[in-house]
Amino acid sequence: MELLKQRILQEGFSLPGNVLKVDSFLNQQIDPELSLKMGEEFVKRFHDCKIDRVLTIEASGIAIGLTTALKLGVPLVFARKRTSILMTESMYSTKVFSYTKKETNTISVLKKFLPAAENVLIIDDFLANGDSALGLAKMVEEAGSKVVGIGIAIEKSFQIGKSKLTEAGYRIESLARIKSLADCKIEFVEE
Amino acid sequence: MELLKQRILQEGFSLPGNVLKVDSFLNQQIDPELSLKMGEEFVKRFHDCKIDRVLTIEASGIAIGLTTALKLGVPLVFARKRTSILMTESMYSTKVFSYTKKETNTISVLKKFLPAAENVLIIDDFLANGDSALGLAKMVEEAGSKVVGIGIAIEKSFQIGKSKLTEAGYRIESLARIKSLADCKIEFVEE
Repeated sequence: MELLKQRILQEGFSLPGNVLKVDSFLNQQIDPELSLKMGEEFVKRFHDCKIDRVLTIEASGIAIGLTTALKLGVPLVFARKRTSILMTESMYSTKVFSYTKKETNTISVLKKFLPAAENVLIIDDFLANGDSALGLAKMVEEAGSKVVGIGIAIEKSFQIGKSKLTEAGYRIESLARIKSLADCKIEFVEE
Repeated sequence: MELLKQRILQEGFSLPGNVLKVDSFLNQQIDPELSLKMGEEFVKRFHDCKIDRVLTIEASGIAIGLTTALKLGVPLVFARKRTSILMTESMYSTKVFSYTKKETNTISVLKKFLPAAENVLIIDDFLANGDSALGLAKMVEEAGSKVVGIGIAIEKSFQIGKSKLTEAGYRIESLARIKSLADCKIEFVEE
């Protein structure tokens, strides 16, 4: 997605440790118009799929999950990284390690919001080691539903997540694919 | 907002301890169409204000903050309840007690995303004791900007937050105002 790649080049920062910082339009400040266009692009890429529900994870997945779900006319559900005292009902939970927070979170979704026999599209902001997306996919399958695909805003193609998910049989659509962040330079995969 | 009140009556649960559970359309499963309409309603209610930026707090504020910001054509910024290792720059931080998580969170926004001399609209899902909204307002003012108003999805009018914010001089627009949750019944303020 050319528009997203341009923004990454204009505003993104590549930091030591293969970290890409895009907090000016995706991770803390959000550009609503860009989020809408990203949602439209996900819908376009998965136009051949029947989709009943979009699943994402708090917090940075919510904006692009919402615009995707809005365009599809289906509900959005987001997994929580911490449970609230209001989550008293039965949950799907799985452990996910966050590289940017340096901690393992148990992510949870109330079972009632992941019904069986649905086609679920997973949306997330980053794909690096693939833990989040795999955790979400596991919950969908535990519910007896099908993961129709995984839509990613920014894929770090040089990290293991992409191949891990592809080998597990998932269809991945990434709006921007990064080949390298070496020497703090941002280089995209040629497409 | 009649549509929101209907949904609260249809799907909301009033639990002991003055808790209203609306996780089927606002807090974990999100109805994108309703979120869009809520955003449009906020924009309508604050149509007399110049607004440069929408500020909310993760996670449940993001969807309605996004639709509001989208309609206004301005950026959305969300305060984080936990910092990431990527938040290395200067931040505004304030402590907020969460009644549903029974803990005090330090909420933070990177200073670069709250510039001075702006008009900021604060959006949040619930108004109960007013701590979150006051914390967000404090950060806006510390930045040298103005809080033009506070848009709330569901106001628990029987709790202290509303009067606390009004006495502090803030304009509050709540889409649904709840008079009582006593005996696990949901009663709205007559308007």
